[in-house]
Amino acid sequence: MCAPLCQEAVTRHFNRRSFLASAAAVTAGACLPTPVRAAEPKTITFSKIVDLTHRLSPDFPTFTGQPQFSLADKNMGPRPKGYHAYTWTLAEHTGTHMDAPLHFGGKLSADQLPVTDLYGPLAVIDIRAKVQTDPDARLTPDDIRSWEKKHGPLPVGGIVAMFTGWEEHVASDMFRNADAKGVMHFPGFHEETPDFLMKERQIKGICVDTLSLDYGPTTDFPVHCRWLGSGHWGMECVARLGSLPPTGATLIAAGPMIAGSSGGPSRVLALL
Amino acid sequence: MCAPLCQEAVTRHFNRRSFLASAAAVTAGACLPTPVRAAEPKTITFSKIVDLTHRLSPDFPTFTGQPQFSLADKNMGPRPKGYHAYTWTLAEHTGTHMDAPLHFGGKLSADQLPVTDLYGPLAVIDIRAKVQTDPDARLTPDDIRSWEKKHGPLPVGGIVAMFTGWEEHVASDMFRNADAKGVMHFPGFHEETPDFLMKERQIKGICVDTLSLDYGPTTDFPVHCRWLGSGHWGMECVARLGSLPPTGATLIAAGPMIAGSSGGPSRVLALL
Repeated sequence: MCAPLCQEAVTRHFNRRSFLASAAAVTAGACLPTPVRAAEPKTITFSKIVDLTHRLSPDFPTFTGQPQFSLADKNMGPRPKGYHAYTWTLAEHTGTHMDAPLHFGGKLSADQLPVTDLYGPLAVIDIRAKVQTDPDARLTPDDIRSWEKKHGPLPVGGIVAMFTGWEEHVASDMFRNADAKGVMHFPGFHEETPDFLMKERQIKGICVDTLSLDYGPTTDFPVHCRWLGSGHWGMECVARLGSLPPTGATLIAAGPMIAGSSGGPSRVLALL
Repeated sequence: MCAPLCQEAVTRHFNRRSFLASAAAVTAGACLPTPVRAAEPKTITFSKIVDLTHRLSPDFPTFTGQPQFSLADKNMGPRPKGYHAYTWTLAEHTGTHMDAPLHFGGKLSADQLPVTDLYGPLAVIDIRAKVQTDPDARLTPDDIRSWEKKHGPLPVGGIVAMFTGWEEHVASDMFRNADAKGVMHFPGFHEETPDFLMKERQIKGICVDTLSLDYGPTTDFPVHCRWLGSGHWGMECVARLGSLPPTGATLIAAGPMIAGSSGGPSRVLALL
């Protein structure tokens, strides 16, 4: 059965994203493989965990450039000294966070993804060299083929992380890198890569160390539409990829178990 | 160095908790061991993950009895068909959630707990038999000693889960089980158990399948004060403990990486 995809791409001023998009429907009607859901039981061994999660604070950079998180003390009246409890208000796509399929045309909300979807062998694909000369660089199928020549084939049912080094900009405006027209410039997955990863490699999830699965200047979000629309998940603003080997880690994408959510702040852990 | 503890217990009407508390200071000045922070590197093996997280929806039961979570669509204007993104508003202590030390007198917020604190060998202590005859049953040091006679000593640096079977009531008012005076009745850890677990067993975290580390009728929260106040974490409303063996699982308490939070909705996973 064809997975549902974006039926209509971003066709006019789309105020959350704050840009004019002109592309027509990207993927309507396409038939793509559903995600690898039932992995063979496999023994996994680790001896340490690396936390790939950024600390989320109100000033953490956002795709829109507007604050998307606040923490408030809404307790009224007396309380014991030393007692603390806060209320969060947040837009889901903030901080190190999951994009569930529901975010862009897929059916499943974050809580509907089976836990078997949320972990697997991690391939870290380093495209820092490309990014140093072009902030709009994209991770292509050819980049993956080159990586495989050195490190072997991507594991079936695995997870792919795009390592661009962009994390070094997380504390400055360079993380969004918006030009005079408001167009952002940072790296992302190439629009041909989702089909390659799902059809030819059976990858279950993708991670980026930037604000978006798509690169900054996109107007039609083809990676979001294809990847999420076909039932896969993504994880954005992942930290510390530079501390991981190209292969050998197991990623756990501990997304939110929030009913109906299109994603949200997550804890992302690498078992080594 | 003494860890900071609750300097003043719940001494008068405490409106978040909605009850009159009469106890005096519980633990002021006590000197307790700090948590086991640096575990020896140890190889951990697993072949499946059991999700111990309840799905959080607006009608999930809360300690206060009032709704503590909402999900809203705050996007204005046109958007692509199939696009979804929501805003959450939630009180931190909702759903399957962490109590960080900061919640009750400790220093560390959830994001300040080192990742090495968040996983370890899990002991599941079944007190269902006690609970069937007394909803106010508490897990005592003697219960742990009895458990150890069957299953061996609690692991140093481990995590202890109190398994009461109370999860079966999660969809009804019985989960809070408030009497005519508003006093709740459900099981919890006994007030002597935190000291036993930290001083005599070097346990790093505790989990309950109820709404609170303390039992329902408490007025002074001695377990919260002692356990959190000494720098340890707890996890409340944990699911599916009945699907785990008494020993052999590794728990990962994937708490929120939210700056300054006193805890919050978490993903809790058991590796088997």
